[in-house]
Amino acid sequence: MSLDVAATKPHERLAAALDGEMAAVTAMIAQRMASEHAPRIPQVTAHLVEAGGKRLRPMLTLAAAKMCGYDGPYHIHLAATVEFIHTATLLHDDVVDESTQRRGRPTANLLWDNTSSVLVGDYLFARSFQLMVETGSLRVLDILANAAATIAEGEVLQLTAAADLKTTEDTYLKIVRGKTAALFSAATEVGGVIAGMDDVAVKALFTYGDALGISFQMVDDLLDYGGTSSVIGKNTGDDFRERKLTLPVIRAVAAADATERAFWERTIAKGKQEEGDLETALSLLARHGAMESVRHTALDWAATAKSALTDLPDHPIRDMLSDLADYVVARIS
Amino acid sequence: MSLDVAATKPHERLAAALDGEMAAVTAMIAQRMASEHAPRIPQVTAHLVEAGGKRLRPMLTLAAAKMCGYDGPYHIHLAATVEFIHTATLLHDDVVDESTQRRGRPTANLLWDNTSSVLVGDYLFARSFQLMVETGSLRVLDILANAAATIAEGEVLQLTAAADLKTTEDTYLKIVRGKTAALFSAATEVGGVIAGMDDVAVKALFTYGDALGISFQMVDDLLDYGGTSSVIGKNTGDDFRERKLTLPVIRAVAAADATERAFWERTIAKGKQEEGDLETALSLLARHGAMESVRHTALDWAATAKSALTDLPDHPIRDMLSDLADYVVARIS
Repeated sequence: MSLDVAATKPHERLAAALDGEMAAVTAMIAQRMASEHAPRIPQVTAHLVEAGGKRLRPMLTLAAAKMCGYDGPYHIHLAATVEFIHTATLLHDDVVDESTQRRGRPTANLLWDNTSSVLVGDYLFARSFQLMVETGSLRVLDILANAAATIAEGEVLQLTAAADLKTTEDTYLKIVRGKTAALFSAATEVGGVIAGMDDVAVKALFTYGDALGISFQMVDDLLDYGGTSSVIGKNTGDDFRERKLTLPVIRAVAAADATERAFWERTIAKGKQEEGDLETALSLLARHGAMESVRHTALDWAATAKSALTDLPDHPIRDMLSDLADYVVARIS
Repeated sequence: MSLDVAATKPHERLAAALDGEMAAVTAMIAQRMASEHAPRIPQVTAHLVEAGGKRLRPMLTLAAAKMCGYDGPYHIHLAATVEFIHTATLLHDDVVDESTQRRGRPTANLLWDNTSSVLVGDYLFARSFQLMVETGSLRVLDILANAAATIAEGEVLQLTAAADLKTTEDTYLKIVRGKTAALFSAATEVGGVIAGMDDVAVKALFTYGDALGISFQMVDDLLDYGGTSSVIGKNTGDDFRERKLTLPVIRAVAAADATERAFWERTIAKGKQEEGDLETALSLLARHGAMESVRHTALDWAATAKSALTDLPDHPIRDMLSDLADYVVARIS
């Protein structure tokens, strides 16, 4: 049995440890996404919610609350809140990116229309807002309001930074916080706030979520270029085609000679891409060690996440969160 | 001077009575829509905010707070909140309706793209959320969260009810509450809540805003068919072309004979519209007295709004709000 446990992935161990709470979150999501008047709403939402995903964000809220000894009912509301916000941003992102696939299924904007994706996203935001008001905690509301603003600002920033070779690492970090880390850190932070933890612990929960989210997104951005394996998979190069300035490219552009610079100008800034360009991009990333260097930066952020955990209660969940930070980077082949 | 005052429209008299407060709201809007990191945000928002409009919704909040004797700072935050929510819904509506004109200017989705409209709308929602958290009133947050859910649900309902000849007056009323009345009633209600009014007064403020909003939207829907003048203006028939089931059409469909029913089936349900159909629609609305009957229903709602005011403090602003309810229906030529 202990061998089995050791063999499972950390997020699977977290899911097992938070089994009952996750079931309560799933029930609350189903209940709150229902709309008596507008049946289109549960149709669109169910399509996404049933597709599932790892439910990492609500799990972070539940994990934080449990590790901090919370015994009230509101961690369930907050976990559902976080998942609703995440689902709402996915719906709006699919419109923005004109995506056709999400979690291995056709996207809502393809099955219904962009309009449904926009409006059902708005509905889920409003529902998440009602859920958090029910907790009666102004501090929780403040944290989630700020996260919502960071998320929206990061999305706009990503839009305006696309195709801009002058994008800095600092801007990239702001985009990553908006895209991923702001909701991760809010998820962990509110779990501690609802449990009545002191400022030091709440700050540690913020830092863990923020650093985990940054590490997670950097690894996603590496995987988009095939990780460090340099094998081209079927999803390799989406960011390249969408002309996104992610960290590997930012670093390769910074190290580029005149010929390489012309390549990035043509493919990313001007968007004139030809057969074979992705292969060239991969070879330039490799030549400047951009993939390895981003992996090291992701490892640094994972280390930051782990070290923040020392300010939090000694608890089996804390060890799983530590392992999760390692695992996030270990996903790279 | 008193003659001049009597000659002005009620919303202009309200604007004059709330001059200083409205200036503070405008300043707060400018300050809070700014984004240090993403300059696209103030560009898109300024485009809409500068176009102005009557700023009716924030004025309702300021009017309610002043009439109730509020002397704190938070009515400004709440008025800005209400305007941000309104602007955010306009941005998303323009994407949904594929509009090209708003407040006499090209829409943001035409000037930039749908993506900017979606994301900047999200940003304004998040900003409005931060503003309301600053008031520190959970009751205010509860009211606005519920309004946000009603708005989003109403928008989805409108989408799914379009082209559906079975749409009932009850469904129409839900759509109207989502489109207009929910934000009107939240605007007046939070003005009283922040002023610490008792439940009777807060209920009266809700009823005034709700009934005013319903009356306002019914009149808008009448004006879309040229009001009761039966003269075809340049914007006449937008709802007909978009196959929206507004109250005049719902009533004409309910009274239709077999031939008329076939006309509505073809033009609204199937969307096969030809030259001259709008003129036919107008003549059917006239034949069944649908325009006059909707005008009477709008007058009834205006009367409901006015009668709710009796539970509120005797104040010059109260008289202006009463006149405003009359004026909303008097807009019909």
